[in-house]
Amino acid sequence: MKFVCSKKKLVQAIQTVSKATASNPQTPILGGICMTAENDTIVLEATDNEIGIRCTIEADVSDNGSIVLMGRTAQDVFRRLPGEDVILDYSLEEKLVHIKSGPSNYTLLAMDASAFPHIIRIEPQEAVSFTVTNKDLDDLIRRTVPACGTDIRRPVFTGCLLDLNSGSVTMAATDTHRLSIKTLMISEGPERPRKVIIPAKALKEIQHLLASDVPTDIRVSCSPNKITFEMEGIFITNRLIEGQFPDYKRVMPQNLPINVTLNTADFLSAVERVSLVTRQSEYNIIRLSFSGDKVRITAKNPEIGEAKEQVDANVEGGELDIAFNAAFVTDALQAITGKEFLFQLDKPLSTSIIRETEDTSFLYMITPVRTR
Amino acid sequence: MKFVCSKKKLVQAIQTVSKATASNPQTPILGGICMTAENDTIVLEATDNEIGIRCTIEADVSDNGSIVLMGRTAQDVFRRLPGEDVILDYSLEEKLVHIKSGPSNYTLLAMDASAFPHIIRIEPQEAVSFTVTNKDLDDLIRRTVPACGTDIRRPVFTGCLLDLNSGSVTMAATDTHRLSIKTLMISEGPERPRKVIIPAKALKEIQHLLASDVPTDIRVSCSPNKITFEMEGIFITNRLIEGQFPDYKRVMPQNLPINVTLNTADFLSAVERVSLVTRQSEYNIIRLSFSGDKVRITAKNPEIGEAKEQVDANVEGGELDIAFNAAFVTDALQAITGKEFLFQLDKPLSTSIIRETEDTSFLYMITPVRTR
Repeated sequence: MKFVCSKKKLVQAIQTVSKATASNPQTPILGGICMTAENDTIVLEATDNEIGIRCTIEADVSDNGSIVLMGRTAQDVFRRLPGEDVILDYSLEEKLVHIKSGPSNYTLLAMDASAFPHIIRIEPQEAVSFTVTNKDLDDLIRRTVPACGTDIRRPVFTGCLLDLNSGSVTMAATDTHRLSIKTLMISEGPERPRKVIIPAKALKEIQHLLASDVPTDIRVSCSPNKITFEMEGIFITNRLIEGQFPDYKRVMPQNLPINVTLNTADFLSAVERVSLVTRQSEYNIIRLSFSGDKVRITAKNPEIGEAKEQVDANVEGGELDIAFNAAFVTDALQAITGKEFLFQLDKPLSTSIIRETEDTSFLYMITPVRTR
Repeated sequence: MKFVCSKKKLVQAIQTVSKATASNPQTPILGGICMTAENDTIVLEATDNEIGIRCTIEADVSDNGSIVLMGRTAQDVFRRLPGEDVILDYSLEEKLVHIKSGPSNYTLLAMDASAFPHIIRIEPQEAVSFTVTNKDLDDLIRRTVPACGTDIRRPVFTGCLLDLNSGSVTMAATDTHRLSIKTLMISEGPERPRKVIIPAKALKEIQHLLASDVPTDIRVSCSPNKITFEMEGIFITNRLIEGQFPDYKRVMPQNLPINVTLNTADFLSAVERVSLVTRQSEYNIIRLSFSGDKVRITAKNPEIGEAKEQVDANVEGGELDIAFNAAFVTDALQAITGKEFLFQLDKPLSTSIIRETEDTSFLYMITPVRTR
């Protein structure tokens, strides 16, 4: 194998795929980055058998071939190379990779690529696919992932449900105390509906990898046990979580009588300040008292003290004293994009809803806390 | 105690003194910040019995008094207060501090200030003092601290020697493998010479606290067991390390025959790149081969591979192959301010010197590594 390519492009590709290298690999090859040079491109791949990432870049290839470099070393070395270009030359007899860039010469040990678990596509007959912009995908992930659970003994709650229909995709997440749902209309949805659960960890990684100010189309495909995301030059695959996600449509409370309109930023910062006294305690409880044109927010911690704030509110349909885990409320408010939002409530122990005032495609259900 | 003051100034002062609060305090009060209101000022103090910091800010004091707040809580709460001003009111009967700023109201538990170990000055008859600018003090610290040892069983090497004379101050540090020395001329030095050893940890903290683009004079005073730094509004004290620092003047090699002039940035980046293959190994060894108008830099690691670079050099007085711990070389080069520097060498196992080409006030001695 021998090629010359742009150092910048190669470093970017290594940076991207290295997110999938195992940090404590079961076998050395899972800590490696596979490079395959063929027909004026280099394909870089890494996988920890959970997530897999493949990047393709242009190169001037003079000898086709494939090698695996240790991920950490590749990241360190290529990033620091002083030249504009990199010449990489693999000597099969020595099993050594010669790297040259400007005045730098490296000779690195390489692993045999034949043992590398290559990243493969979902067979077309198995795939259910749709196309989404990076901005819309980011929005789906950003508004739901924070509601995921972290208890690995209940794996279904550590991921987001992706509910695919011909005209819409819905993402939903719950840790059983709160449930966040975001729906997106799509023009060319799959013919067959499908529900899959994507690990939250994978979604965070994908959100990070696809972050860009440039609008890009992403092709998403699911098989029963795998999901893939594909865009210009990058292909990501991740295993799915097995199990049955709760029916999010059935648990939705209807006709909540108390409707409160609040300024999002004012209420969020007041909740954050008040919760400073309780956030180190186990339940992080804040009390909200809705009445007239105000909501009073209070918190108490016998070891630290107490905090009180009030925020202007438009309270319709009754008065109410209710308590929540502050983190659940701030997670919900961070998913709100409007300047104002709607808090819909019923009784002190009934599920409440936080939603946008106008956009009905997002909904955050939250269970109150019993305090006496 | 009751006062009104600027939130910004109070937060800054809390931020500064909180560097001295104990993270795992032996007694709760050492995790606290003492606030004393008196005569239109508030004095804030924190100490972990090793370092102590005192800040003084202006305030509108209506009742004198003194309290101790938990450091972590004070930091969290005051920083997030929404108003321009803060009203703080301590109720002696309740033992509670009422804090008001904009729409926020906090009531925090306070500790009794009578048990707080206040930060005190060195008695004038004990003090040996000099004045230095923040820039010069930063320079003394920056060029020597990296050479300190980290082995707490040999405490003398975990600090910097401050060698005070009437016309100069010298700071020196060594871990026995390298020795860094920086001398500064001063106009009004102490009448009595004194040598003290300041913990590296304290110097790093002080460097950080005194960092400012505004030139400021700092008054430094030493007693046999304590050092204090004083500038506008801030007073810092730290215990000294007991013991005898090696005589740095005696170990200085004389008349090194080989003199190499190198470009600082080029050589530093080449050394950093080459050491990428060895930096995870125990000794991090690089080999330097000086001859003609070049220095070749190489490193080898049987588990990763090898790296080679060469850099233009002006080599006078002979040729030499020599090996060093790469980290010691990069530490030295990071202390060099000139575009070029001088590497002075003798034999493969003799101590070498890295220094500025023109400024003789800085000197870095470095012991080579035996490689066969």
